Order: sequence, then C-alpha cells, then structure tokens
Amino acid sequence: MNRSLILLDHDEYTLRLSRMQQAVASCADAAILSDKATLYWLTGRVFAGFVYVPADGTPLFGLRRCVQFESDGVTAERKIEDFARHVAAAMPAPGQLALEMDSSSYSAVARISAAFAAQWPDTETVNAGAALRAMRAVKTPQQIEMMRRSGLRQEAVYRRIPAIYTPGMTDYELQVEIERESRLEGCLGQFRTAGDEMELFMGNVLTGDNADTPSPYDFAMGGAGMDPSLPVGADGSVIRRGCTVMVDVNGNYTGYMTDMTRTYRLGDIPAEALRAHELSREICRRLAEMGTPGRPAREMYETALGMAREAGLEHRFMGHRQQAGFVGHGLGIEINEAPVIAPRSRDILAEGMCIALEPKFVIAGVGAVGIENTYVVRADGRPMECITNAPEEIIDLDK
Amino acid sequence: MNRSLILLDHDEYTLRLSRMQQAVASCADAAILSDKATLYWLTGRVFAGFVYVPADGTPLFGLRRCVQFESDGVTAERKIEDFARHVAAAMPAPGQLALEMDSSSYSAVARISAAFAAQWPDTETVNAGAALRAMRAVKTPQQIEMMRRSGLRQEAVYRRIPAIYTPGMTDYELQVEIERESRLEGCLGQFRTAGDEMELFMGNVLTGDNADTPSPYDFAMGGAGMDPSLPVGADGSVIRRGCTVMVDVNGNYTGYMTDMTRTYRLGDIPAEALRAHELSREICRRLAEMGTPGRPAREMYETALGMAREAGLEHRFMGHRQQAGFVGHGLGIEINEAPVIAPRSRDILAEGMCIALEPKFVIAGVGAVGIENTYVVRADGRPMECITNAPEEIIDLDK
Repeated sequence: MNRSLILLDHDEYTLRLSRMQQAVASCADAAILSDKATLYWLTGRVFAGFVYVPADGTPLFGLRRCVQFESDGVTAERKIEDFARHVAAAMPAPGQLALEMDSSSYSAVARISAAFAAQWPDTETVNAGAALRAMRAVKTPQQIEMMRRSGLRQEAVYRRIPAIYTPGMTDYELQVEIERESRLEGCLGQFRTAGDEMELFMGNVLTGDNADTPSPYDFAMGGAGMDPSLPVGADGSVIRRGCTVMVDVNGNYTGYMTDMTRTYRLGDIPAEALRAHELSREICRRLAEMGTPGRPAREMYETALGMAREAGLEHRFMGHRQQAGFVGHGLGIEINEAPVIAPRSRDILAEGMCIALEPKFVIAGVGAVGIENTYVVRADGRPMECITNAPEEIIDLDK
Repeated sequence: MNRSLILLDHDEYTLRLSRMQQAVASCADAAILSDKATLYWLTGRVFAGFVYVPADGTPLFGLRRCVQFESDGVTAERKIEDFARHVAAAMPAPGQLALEMDSSSYSAVARISAAFAAQWPDTETVNAGAALRAMRAVKTPQQIEMMRRSGLRQEAVYRRIPAIYTPGMTDYELQVEIERESRLEGCLGQFRTAGDEMELFMGNVLTGDNADTPSPYDFAMGGAGMDPSLPVGADGSVIRRGCTVMVDVNGNYTGYMTDMTRTYRLGDIPAEALRAHELSREICRRLAEMGTPGRPAREMYETALGMAREAGLEHRFMGHRQQAGFVGHGLGIEINEAPVIAPRSRDILAEGMCIALEPKFVIAGVGAVGIENTYVVRADGRPMECITNAPEEIIDLDK
C-alpha cells in the first residue's frame, strides 16, 4: 500500500504546488485549504483535512481521518484549532491568509478564521476563490492526459448506445441502461459541481417535448425529471417515432471529467431539426478554431449566437421556453470550472484550458438536437483538440 | 401542468410553514432561505431562488429560474439584491434575520447579508442552521409516509439481490447490478448530504478485507474505492468463498431516503462473524425498544457500545483499523440529518424522528457483518417502527 499522502509523482507534485503557490501569492501570503476538489488537485488523493500553503516554502498537512498517511509534514489533527496551533508554532504569521470562501460554508470559514485569529491576531483573512478557480482552469499535461483517458472511455460507451436501445423504451429506461454501461466501463458515477446551482445524477436523457420543460438548475437543457425533488432530465416519456433522444451522460473515469452529448432519433425527423443539428456541429468546429490562447471567451459566445441568429434559430438556441445563458464551460475535477463561454464572461482562453462546448437547440414537437464535445486549448494557433470523438451524426435507433 | 410553486396540499403546507415559523421564531424575527433541501421541505418542490419567512405572517418567494411559477407572493428575481428590495418594500425590518450559515457558502451568506443590510441597516444577522436542523429532524405524518414508501421499494430491490449475484463477480460488478435494479425500481440516484464530510455515489458494497480499509468520509464503514478521487466502497475485489458481502445501497425513491444494509456470504463463514451479525440484530432490537420520545440519543450509543463490549467485540465495532464514532443517524431529505446517535450527542428523541441504526462489525479475513434499518420514533412507549423490512439473516449467495 502506498503510505504517502501525496499520490502524484514528484515532478507533477512540484509543478502543481508551484502553480498553487503562485495562485496564493496573487491574493495573500498563505492559504488554508480544505475543499475536497482542491486537496485532490494538489495531492492526487481525496482526504479529510487541511493544508496550509505558504506562498513560499513547504506546506503543512493536517489529517482528520486516515492517519495511516502521517509522515513528515503530515500530522493527525482532529480539530482546526489544533492544526492552527501546530501551524503557528512552525510558521511566521502571514499578513493575509486566504480561505476558500466560495466553496466552504459560512460556519466553516468563520471557525477557521477564529482558529487562526487566536494564533495570529493581526492576520487578515481574504477569499482564495477566484485565484484557485483561475489556477484550476489551466490543466497540467498530466491532467489533460487523464481527461483524454476519460474521453476515450466515455466514447466507448456512446458507441454502444444504438445497441442498448430496444423498441418501446422510455427515456428513463434508456438512461438506466446507459448508466449501467458507463459503470461497467469504470465510470465513478460521482459528478462534482461547484456552487449551489446544480444537482444531478449521472447525466440526462431527453426526448420529445420534455426537452423544453424548464429546470431550476443551471444546465444547458432542462427536463421535468422523475420527481419534484430532482426536477431535471428524463420524465419517463416513451421514445416516439419522429422524435429525437439527446444523451448527455457524463464521463468521470479518472477523477477528471469529460462532457459529451450526442443526439439519436427514432425514424425520420423534420428538416429543421436536422438543420439545427448540423448548425450545432458547425458552431463547434468554428469555436474550436477560435479557441486559441488570448481569445476572450465572450467572443466565442457571440459567434455561436450570431450563427444561430443567421440561421433563424435564435429562439431555439440553448432552450426555447427557458434559454441557458452560455454555450460552453470549463471542466475537470468539477463539471463547472472556469472559463465560462457566456456573453458577460471576462475569461480569456489560455493553453491547457479544458472546455466543453454544447450549442444545443430545442425543436417543438421533436426534442433537443445538437452535440457537445470536450476540447483542450493548444498553443501555436492550432484549433482546440477534441477529446470526445464518438460519431457526431444523428443516429437512427430504428436501424 | 401544476402552475403553483407549492406542490404540497393545503393542510400539509400550513403544517410545515407553521413548524418553520416556530423554528424561525426560536432564533430570529425572520429568515431568508435558499438551500435546496430547505426549499423542498417547505414546498414539496426543488426550485432555484429564495424564500423570506417572517416568524409571523405570509412568506415571500423569489424565483431565479422557472418563472412559470410566478403568482401571488411568488416573483421572478434574478438577483438577491432585487429580492431584498422587494421584501423590504413589503415587510417591516426584522431585528434579527436568520441565514443558513451552516449550508450556504461564506460568499453567498456575505452577499445575502449585504443585500439586506442595504435595505435594513439596523438588522442583525444570525445563524438559522441549528433551528432548521432541529425542525427537519421531526417528520410530519406525510413525510413519514414518503419514507415508508421509499423503504418498501428499497426492500423490493434487496429481496432480488441473491438472484442478481453470479459466481465470480467482483464487489463492484455486484454493486453495478444492484444500482441498475434500484434505478429500474425508481431510485432517483441522488443522495443528498449535509456538510462537507461525505461524498458518495449510490451506496457501497464491501467484501473481505476491503471492509477494513479506512476512508476519509464520515460513514460507518470504509473501503478503498475504485479510484483515489472517490476513496470509499468497493475496490474491485472478487467475492471469495468464506467472505461476507455487505450491501448498503441507498433508497431515495420519493425525495425522502431510507437507509438499509444487509449482509450476504459465499459459503461458510467463521462463528465469530455469525455471532457478530446476530449481535448487530440484537442491538437494533434493543435500541428500537429504547427509542421512545425523551430518550437521550447518547444513551442509545452507550447501550450499543456496552453490548459490543460485553460480547468481546468492541475492537471490531463500527470498524477495526478506523472506528466510526456513531451507531446511528437521522435521515430524510439528507442522509445525515439530526439526531446523531453518538457518545457526545445532545439530541433527545421525539415522536416523528426518523433514525437509521447501523451497528456493524469488521471481522478480519472475512469482511463486514451486521444490518442497518430505518426507524420512526412513535408515541405511547411503543418501540420504534422499522420501515426497512428485508430479511435480516445472512443469506448464502451460493445457494
């Protein structure tokens, strides 16, 4: 058994720590971090505890459980107050201490603040959220490789979807069988999200007019869901002839997620639906070409909306009764990382960012059409690399 | 389509609102609430938005999405600042305003506080967390009925487990097939938790020595998991002869969850394992008898620990290499509601509380044994009602 808390190889850990220390230095003199996504980002392992990261120097880890990982610089600490004492005995007082105010509860931040204020009364606390979000937006080559591996396995599942479908199935039944295929392929099921605007199981399957039912969640598409306690996605509708089925079941196979959507149909569908689907593919291609370092994310959204408008499909773009206000989003450990491809986004693309683009359309009486792919931003003016490569055409489930 | 935001019938909504207003009155003059579990508790529907609940009078709702539910007292509000203006125009300034400081992020609470401070500079903000937690611990008869319905469907799935098993299966493969059966039975998959100490997919299946692997999460049992990004539960071990398989796959069929664990075996297992399993059943029976209104939760934990000690199984109780510090927990919309059955718990049982008891043991070289049931606290000195009634004996998968 590996008894080291740090699961990453030495070079990767050194790289990530140096990037984290740059992020800390951009907002404070040190940070105290405990969000599971942050700890996993730094160490390659989810654990329960804290890490104190000085902008310069060696971090100190405190474990609330799994004390088998105790070692040099890694101590068992049941309470944050004990950890604060330990840190203060070993480290000089920082002028500013950054905390994860966007992801930790008010009560948790208040307790951490109080624990460190008891040791360092003159230290000011600030929010690490924006700096960590920007740090996580840019993936290391090893993280990108983990995303590529997720994409390959998600693609393998999607290639099996036509064989999974049986006549008379509901959207929900098809979803359950896709979930099973995903799990057997090694999908971890877990779908981490940042903030309070999302709740979801493994993904969504939408058919017919259910695609036009507004949902309270901040996803591209809606759906009534099976129960008012989780009002999103499949609602148990039978997949009917002349309708589409949009499959957006997530791909978390490595701790790093890919996002891919494909559209299927049962028999013939109207020309408008086919045209909108081709437009979605064309928008993805165009945005992938635009997606070079230095590009404002906002411009990509404007281009997508402009193409929808030019095709007379603006009122069907990203929903119909309720329209989502974005066309893409960063992703990695969480499904909604930076950048966001939206009209008021101030994000600027950089090499190593991973972005899901999902220009989708809702066609009345038919359902949702369009695709979603996950891309990596590259240097040297090359288009973004697509890492979710299942066939993009609408496949007829009747064949 | 139901166009009313409130999905509950009139009497149930009146009952819940009055209980919420008592909770608000116990800590403040009004509350502003936005946690999805809280909104679902009050309305029977998850939505994106806010509710302003005065200790006395009519609440005001603000919707961030799904504006089809706009009506009297329900307005569309993109931003909390707009909602605060709207509320302040309609309501007198409260002396104290309670916010969900335990479940909302620091940044979200700070933004809500600032929005209301701009309207009501003399209003003080306080934490609604403890009062809401106490409120939710006691279920209404209608909520208990929803839990009973979850329990019946979870039981139906558990009865099919021996037929699902095929020789040579790994713990993970068995889990995937149980997940599929659960989903086909209508399990929503979603598994809401309070706080940051848990992350989980649909539940856990543990076999052999993997049951003794410590996990960073605050669950009764551990397990290495399939990946360091989700280190809990099945690790891909083949289910071996002479070992047990513990199945703890959650039952959220109605928005209200039940928790049930059953143990299986492949062929014969040592006498110590059989004895520990029978002790788990005996602890459940004893605690169910003790579980009457007015009972300190702490006493139930002490009784369970005392019984384990008397049987010489204390060092195997609730884990071995790492032991969990509780034997039961409240549940409902979230899997870890009040009360907690633990040594330092200050919770007192009350009629209508729903509690999962899970006295489990880890036997070296064999695996985990024991059961878990969900119970309802009743009046009149009767034992708690068990609502998860699959057979409790260890079933041999080899038969």
